[in-house]
Amino acid sequence: MPRRASRPQSSEDRLIARYFKPIAWHPGAFGLADDAAVLKAPPGHELVLKTDAIVGGVHFFADDPPETVARKALRVNLSDLAAKGSQPVGFLLSLALPKSVDHPWLTRFARGLAADAKRHQCPLFGGDTVRTPGPVTISIAAFGIVPEGTMVRRAGARVGDYVVVTGTIGDAALGLKLRDDRGAARRWKLTAGMRKHLAARYLVPEPRNALADALRRHATAAMDVSDGLAGDLGKLCAASRVGAEVEVVRVPLSAGARAALRDEPKLFEAILTGGDDFEVVATIRPAKLARFRAAAKSAGVPVTTIGRIVAGQGARFRDAEGRAMAFARASFSHF
Amino acid sequence: MPRRASRPQSSEDRLIARYFKPIAWHPGAFGLADDAAVLKAPPGHELVLKTDAIVGGVHFFADDPPETVARKALRVNLSDLAAKGSQPVGFLLSLALPKSVDHPWLTRFARGLAADAKRHQCPLFGGDTVRTPGPVTISIAAFGIVPEGTMVRRAGARVGDYVVVTGTIGDAALGLKLRDDRGAARRWKLTAGMRKHLAARYLVPEPRNALADALRRHATAAMDVSDGLAGDLGKLCAASRVGAEVEVVRVPLSAGARAALRDEPKLFEAILTGGDDFEVVATIRPAKLARFRAAAKSAGVPVTTIGRIVAGQGARFRDAEGRAMAFARASFSHF
Repeated sequence: MPRRASRPQSSEDRLIARYFKPIAWHPGAFGLADDAAVLKAPPGHELVLKTDAIVGGVHFFADDPPETVARKALRVNLSDLAAKGSQPVGFLLSLALPKSVDHPWLTRFARGLAADAKRHQCPLFGGDTVRTPGPVTISIAAFGIVPEGTMVRRAGARVGDYVVVTGTIGDAALGLKLRDDRGAARRWKLTAGMRKHLAARYLVPEPRNALADALRRHATAAMDVSDGLAGDLGKLCAASRVGAEVEVVRVPLSAGARAALRDEPKLFEAILTGGDDFEVVATIRPAKLARFRAAAKSAGVPVTTIGRIVAGQGARFRDAEGRAMAFARASFSHF
Repeated sequence: MPRRASRPQSSEDRLIARYFKPIAWHPGAFGLADDAAVLKAPPGHELVLKTDAIVGGVHFFADDPPETVARKALRVNLSDLAAKGSQPVGFLLSLALPKSVDHPWLTRFARGLAADAKRHQCPLFGGDTVRTPGPVTISIAAFGIVPEGTMVRRAGARVGDYVVVTGTIGDAALGLKLRDDRGAARRWKLTAGMRKHLAARYLVPEPRNALADALRRHATAAMDVSDGLAGDLGKLCAASRVGAEVEVVRVPLSAGARAALRDEPKLFEAILTGGDDFEVVATIRPAKLARFRAAAKSAGVPVTTIGRIVAGQGARFRDAEGRAMAFARASFSHF
């Protein structure tokens, strides 16, 4: 058994100082020079807590650029904070590294992390770095703030609400398919721009933090779409004890996704169930839809109405002829 | 690439509901039925944040009882919260599991976790469960509370302070040696009780949460001893810009550690540098020592004075003849 050791003022300390201290600019992080950090929500606010991990060979490829691995690790958490209507305030990083990870990899990883921490005003509060005989494993615990009692829940959707989604759906699932199936780009007749777009959407999600305030003020329920729109909307419906009717033709698709669908119509299932979208699905009362859309517009976040909340249970996706689509599986699960 | 999928109302959801929901009794955890949790420090208080991970084959053995693995994962974090003078309020759990982990293993893991969460009044606020091709990897982010501005720092030790430690030092390192070297127990002439004690100290640390208030009221600096007393006291001294003089004969040892030392005097180095003690080392102003000792006594935590803080730098350990001991390495490091 395996604890390897090294010299005093350990290289672990030096590694942390060199790579991660610049990301820890909040005074409560004590420059990563203590064993723990302190954090306090402003008066009348509370913290929103979230943890998500990504694993090499499962959530990213071992040869993905270290910068994008870091950004994905942080952003999958930021995406949840956004969907819950909260503003990010900081995160803790737990990093398990195999021996094969060298200083150039870590430098690039830290560079990606620093850029995103700065961009989203979400500094590092502390971390732990350990060796693993397995793949790179990055677990982040992220903290947001909301005015007390205003976190947007899964369980608030009401019959009659509109169902909206941000951005476009299915791009990341198709981006992943492009990595597995090198001939797909030609078959789908993708332009270089489309190929690049789909690939990038798998590598680095675009968390919708700019929409957080609008969600908090206008949404009855929301969650981020991480395991496929069909399954995640189903979870939102289950928590809210309602059903949903979605018109599939309204689901927003990128030009690349539309091109792929023209060649292979059955890809619609992958688009609706594939996961890794990191968009937001939310429900909005009809009386608030216009205000929500205006707020989203000024936040620069595209939103599309795709259906309605109905009595009953389950999320039904109807094609152009009104037929309910059946999926072999509604969402991604690790188990 | 690797995202495996399964049916709606995924088995991941069922797994979480079955095993972890009972540990999530705080109302802010929403019964693990939402995507995030909320937490708020009471007025005049702030949160203390800490994350520590443990990895199968690195921090525990693959065949350790799942109950003790869970308890170790939580307790290494609780130990930090205690040393910082804070009371635990909750934690987030990130769990990467290989396929070989089955439901009986998880049931036992959850049972151990639940018992400790209850014992330390530290409920689960949320988590993430992912597959890994590597070993079981458990990352916990733990939260404590302290009155604002009172977290006990590494950087507060002053010349003249007494250096104290809780419990006994070196037991976990010897417990680990017993696992690697089956003949050691006989060579060291350990009784069955001693063998059991040392083994248990490696498997399950005893976080000193009962001492948190006394540390907060009386310590100038403190940290938990996780990477070896010599190295960790050295880090505390570096952060405080002071030195320390420790009389090795005063370092508290269990009966098992004393027996081992009688057979193999050079084990003192493993005892002082081996790590995994999860005791607290703290510095106390002379005028406060009596009150601190009384508070520790009523908390039921044994504390021992082992030395003094001096001007200069570095932690020096002197043997009975006053000679400074030299260590090949002062503390454990992963890198």
